[in-house]
Amino acid sequence: MTRIAIFGAAGYGGIELLRILLAHPEVEITYLGGRTTAGQDVTDMYPHLLGSIKLPIEETSVEVACERADLLFFALPHGVGIPMVAEAVRAGKKVVDFSADFRLKDVTTYEAYYRPHDAPELLSQAAYGLPELHRDTIRDTTLCAVPGCYPTGAILALAPAVMAGLIEADTIIIDSKTGISGAGRSKLDLLYHFPEANESLLAYAVGTHRHTPEMDQELSLLAGSQITVTFTPHLIPITRGILSTCYATFAQGTTLDQAQNVYEEFYAEEPFVQVLPAGKLPRTKHVSGSNFCHIGLAEDVRTSRLVVVSAVDNLIKGLSGSACQCMNLMMGWDETTALDQPGMWP
Amino acid sequence: MTRIAIFGAAGYGGIELLRILLAHPEVEITYLGGRTTAGQDVTDMYPHLLGSIKLPIEETSVEVACERADLLFFALPHGVGIPMVAEAVRAGKKVVDFSADFRLKDVTTYEAYYRPHDAPELLSQAAYGLPELHRDTIRDTTLCAVPGCYPTGAILALAPAVMAGLIEADTIIIDSKTGISGAGRSKLDLLYHFPEANESLLAYAVGTHRHTPEMDQELSLLAGSQITVTFTPHLIPITRGILSTCYATFAQGTTLDQAQNVYEEFYAEEPFVQVLPAGKLPRTKHVSGSNFCHIGLAEDVRTSRLVVVSAVDNLIKGLSGSACQCMNLMMGWDETTALDQPGMWP
Amino acid sequence: MTRIAIFGAAGYGGIELLRILLAHPEVEITYLGGRTTAGQDVTDMYPHLLGSIKLPIEETSVEVACERADLLFFALPHGVGIPMVAEAVRAGKKVVDFSADFRLKDVTTYEAYYRPHDAPELLSQAAYGLPELHRDTIRDTTLCAVPGCYPTGAILALAPAVMAGLIEADTIIIDSKTGISGAGRSKLDLLYHFPEANESLLAYAVGTHRHTPEMDQELSLLAGSQITVTFTPHLIPITRGILSTCYATFAQGTTLDQAQNVYEEFYAEEPFVQVLPAGKLPRTKHVSGSNFCHIGLAEDVRTSRLVVVSAVDNLIKGLSGSACQCMNLMMGWDETTALDQPGMWP
Amino acid sequence: MTRIAIFGAAGYGGIELLRILLAHPEVEITYLGGRTTAGQDVTDMYPHLLGSIKLPIEETSVEVACERADLLFFALPHGVGIPMVAEAVRAGKKVVDFSADFRLKDVTTYEAYYRPHDAPELLSQAAYGLPELHRDTIRDTTLCAVPGCYPTGAILALAPAVMAGLIEADTIIIDSKTGISGAGRSKLDLLYHFPEANESLLAYAVGTHRHTPEMDQELSLLAGSQITVTFTPHLIPITRGILSTCYATFAQGTTLDQAQNVYEEFYAEEPFVQVLPAGKLPRTKHVSGSNFCHIGLAEDVRTSRLVVVSAVDNLIKGLSGSACQCMNLMMGWDETTALDQPGMWP
Repeated sequence: MTRIAIFGAAGYGGIELLRILLAHPEVEITYLGGRTTAGQDVTDMYPHLLGSIKLPIEETSVEVACERADLLFFALPHGVGIPMVAEAVRAGKKVVDFSADFRLKDVTTYEAYYRPHDAPELLSQAAYGLPELHRDTIRDTTLCAVPGCYPTGAILALAPAVMAGLIEADTIIIDSKTGISGAGRSKLDLLYHFPEANESLLAYAVGTHRHTPEMDQELSLLAGSQITVTFTPHLIPITRGILSTCYATFAQGTTLDQAQNVYEEFYAEEPFVQVLPAGKLPRTKHVSGSNFCHIGLAEDVRTSRLVVVSAVDNLIKGLSGSACQCMNLMMGWDETTALDQPGMWP
Repeated sequence: MTRIAIFGAAGYGGIELLRILLAHPEVEITYLGGRTTAGQDVTDMYPHLLGSIKLPIEETSVEVACERADLLFFALPHGVGIPMVAEAVRAGKKVVDFSADFRLKDVTTYEAYYRPHDAPELLSQAAYGLPELHRDTIRDTTLCAVPGCYPTGAILALAPAVMAGLIEADTIIIDSKTGISGAGRSKLDLLYHFPEANESLLAYAVGTHRHTPEMDQELSLLAGSQITVTFTPHLIPITRGILSTCYATFAQGTTLDQAQNVYEEFYAEEPFVQVLPAGKLPRTKHVSGSNFCHIGLAEDVRTSRLVVVSAVDNLIKGLSGSACQCMNLMMGWDETTALDQPGMWP
Repeated sequence: MTRIAIFGAAGYGGIELLRILLAHPEVEITYLGGRTTAGQDVTDMYPHLLGSIKLPIEETSVEVACERADLLFFALPHGVGIPMVAEAVRAGKKVVDFSADFRLKDVTTYEAYYRPHDAPELLSQAAYGLPELHRDTIRDTTLCAVPGCYPTGAILALAPAVMAGLIEADTIIIDSKTGISGAGRSKLDLLYHFPEANESLLAYAVGTHRHTPEMDQELSLLAGSQITVTFTPHLIPITRGILSTCYATFAQGTTLDQAQNVYEEFYAEEPFVQVLPAGKLPRTKHVSGSNFCHIGLAEDVRTSRLVVVSAVDNLIKGLSGSACQCMNLMMGWDETTALDQPGMWP
Repeated sequence: MTRIAIFGAAGYGGIELLRILLAHPEVEITYLGGRTTAGQDVTDMYPHLLGSIKLPIEETSVEVACERADLLFFALPHGVGIPMVAEAVRAGKKVVDFSADFRLKDVTTYEAYYRPHDAPELLSQAAYGLPELHRDTIRDTTLCAVPGCYPTGAILALAPAVMAGLIEADTIIIDSKTGISGAGRSKLDLLYHFPEANESLLAYAVGTHRHTPEMDQELSLLAGSQITVTFTPHLIPITRGILSTCYATFAQGTTLDQAQNVYEEFYAEEPFVQVLPAGKLPRTKHVSGSNFCHIGLAEDVRTSRLVVVSAVDNLIKGLSGSACQCMNLMMGWDETTALDQPGMWP
């Protein structure tokens, strides 16, 4: 059994990872670390785990975790985990990091969107944990950065079109809608207060959201030239799910049929990406509770625009499921282990 | 007192109009017509009206309604009401129609999106009931067509930019999100079945939605040249509200500050359109239950795109409130009568 | 115009009162006081009021409010407002208080459930603001205590049965379900954090909720003997509404038909209580957004129990609407002024 | 591998069973039968299963199913499946039935609440599929009737108290609140239409709900004397979950501490029932997506009443999870197979 440590175990990312790993036949959880929650049993905070696990949340200590575990997950806020990740890497441990700290290759971009980076030397050796694009790199890495929830859905929606040159690269607009679990658990705010969040729709961070440079980075890599997207996130009163509606002008002569074919081929062997049949569009509820990403294509004939819609569960394919998928690759296990269950309906 | 008849009184549009008119000091409701609901008292179907009104729903008869009323509202499905509207107009009555039947000036477009038109001769004399753009025409008309719920928010969001040439006209993309009351009451469907609609997001009718030609028509009129928009509607698990996120590339040299000024001036005298202060974006909950439209502006500096977000209550400013506003204009009353109340919070 | 001051204007109770009073023809709002929100315009916090009102929230000062207003509303947390209310009463002003501070006649009970009382001498002169039971007292009082949201629905549901001796008084169980706006705005908590509140049901404060002694007090008064109820509140993921399901064993020989008659007579003249036709039960949505209380009766024939279900909007009939209704009585105005509108559907 | 047939595969019960069985290592699904859905692939109707299974829904035929399967699940409406179940039993197959048809031992009671029974001779040999009370019987049966969703939570909440004589048996009142998935998928109704169900609470079928005699039967069996409960179900705008708040007067001299001990002992060895620590109450969200039942105890000291609150997921512990648990027992497998996963949070 591979021994696992989780830092930030009491947040939504950590707790969802814990749930997934409970069903994983190759791992054993040996350490849960929490910054503000140490001293409690995890079931005190999360009674849904009663009868499934009994484990204390401990003071945060990379040293202790390195003694007890072979692979460490860090589900900490941006910036906080950098020295801890660096310490674990130095100790020769495999690391999967949930934060944005090791996603961007360009430290300048990171620092423009986040804060000064304490371990820029690690950026080049970190893998961007989107298996559909970087499977081999992930297999070989010791440090894997799980993509942001928005970028996961948006990049998967656009990758085949960008790679195959189906669209004009400077026309990409991504309009995403997320459930409120994306805001996490530690930051209470009137925006997420049920009576005010319920029955409300809003856009935020237009043109400035921190997940934007990830999209640029990955799409540019695929295109072989710089791509700059417009990205607008929206907050929607559901708990889980991101729907991304992506717009771009068709490259001269491209048709929807062609695009459908390109997408089906591109994802033909992918265990967790489903390109829906022509004419069908995804719903977040169809992927809620699962590691799947559903993608549907449509066109606006009148304006020659391709419209690609993708759906993911922001806490699974958009976070903890991806993290497990990356771990499976890093450990040489079947990539789908503990992840091949569908969600519930309804 | 002006006597009022409502056809289709038992749908969401009719019942919301009825609620609004109950508070209107100049009118008296003398006739409620229903196609499938005749014979019931309106409170049998709508117990929320107990203690507020007691009125039977009657067999549909334009003749009877014309005897009893001075102004007739038709809240019927597309196509169904055309001969009835024509009959009422012939009888010299003022008519406000909720359907799409008299919104489009071009009968060919109507017939491409809907069905053969039984009274095309009325199209030219009908006013498009968006007071912010057609106030004088509405004042003078006897037949007013209430705009679609999506076009109301989208056109108000884009009108100043289009009129002032702030944006490149062929780059407009409108991504709208609607609450489920927009689907009406008479058509039960698994899409709207609570366990399946709840916690779900989806796009539909991409590039083909029937409300699209209204947007084209009105924006083209403002631009003085043909505009063809891309429009994608989404279904969101809330009851009321439409948020429209509108994208367009800035015309060379235009800035967000300029746009903010143009919008504030354009709507300075409008009683129901609020341009939010620079930096603020609207929420549907802020207009839920009211006739207001909130509009906020942002930009994606990286791609020189203007992003305008508008919020309306789809059943009020997007339907029955607009209908009342039009009636007020047609009757020469204060335009805000019965409409000047804010919504509830939370 | 009667001049009105509102303390605690920025909470849900204050802001809902403000909305109601905006439509009231006899009043003018001249002062809004806030403890932590002073200095802001009310529309900064509540953009739904844009275009309806523009008024600063001021430092809390009874002295200033007494200069500027004839009637003062206090929508403050329990205990906080006592000295302020006392000051206003001394100044000869009419006062309507939203807190529990003046609801209980017995200071010992108040202090057992709340805290030491700073002005117990006012308790005897305060009216319990439930017009259906205390209309004349309210008319004559200068200090009116608005009932708690739970007691309003529960007492109205049980009053006729208790008064007429239809039920065995020691068998009363009240199972109430409330929307989350009842938790207010100032206390953010994971319980109300959308991702955790959504899709969740729970009971709380079983047998110990602070609203229980109000129910005892009022029902005992009606019965002429001590009544002690069992009360369990539940938190439900809706914004507004309380449904109270009340159980009691029928007194020997009593029938449901009799009960139905007693209820219909008891509330025959009440403008805001609707006893539903035999066989019908209320829904919170039917009273949401209105000052109505709907009451429906049923029986469990097998166990000879009467089941009375009532529905109110917790922020209107359960709070700010009642407050306005009381003001109308205290001022000698038509009791229904500004309150006679139905809610919206859907 | 044991071969499994599911009739009524396209309803919520069938589809949830299918999901659970996909993770079951001992079974293979060889037949899906549907009455109105035959001819479609199950993923056409349920895209959340894309990538997890591909299986046609076939015409309903017990003969075919008996050829292909060893154990048959019937998830059909009451009455419809009786002859089919009888045929399968005659063919020597093991059967698990989701309907009410084989739950009640007394055919007169069944017929009073449902309809004439076509195979009353099977009633005595059917096991009531609540493992916590009938584990041995279930192990030995060939025909197992899965309990109703409401009875599951209510009986588990009351069983220890009734068995140990902690409460006065004629004082039991059960106030249950269910999510809307309990209404199923095939019956569309305005009650479940999102815009009308959302933000609404209601009670229904007071004193007459068909699940009531199940509660009486099982509690009477435990008590050794006739128990007649009062039961009121409520419809709540969530998808999954039932919270049951159960009231009863303490038997003379009984204390809450005693009750807590009795409950903890009663369920000490149960894999899926969690008695919460003293002072804690359950939330439906804590059991949503899992086969657990959470139970919490409280008292109303003032009236000497015990209040027991239980929470289950109506589609898992309240239906398809229980069905799997019963199958595990009938087949001699570990009772928790495919069921030992916690739900998701949030």
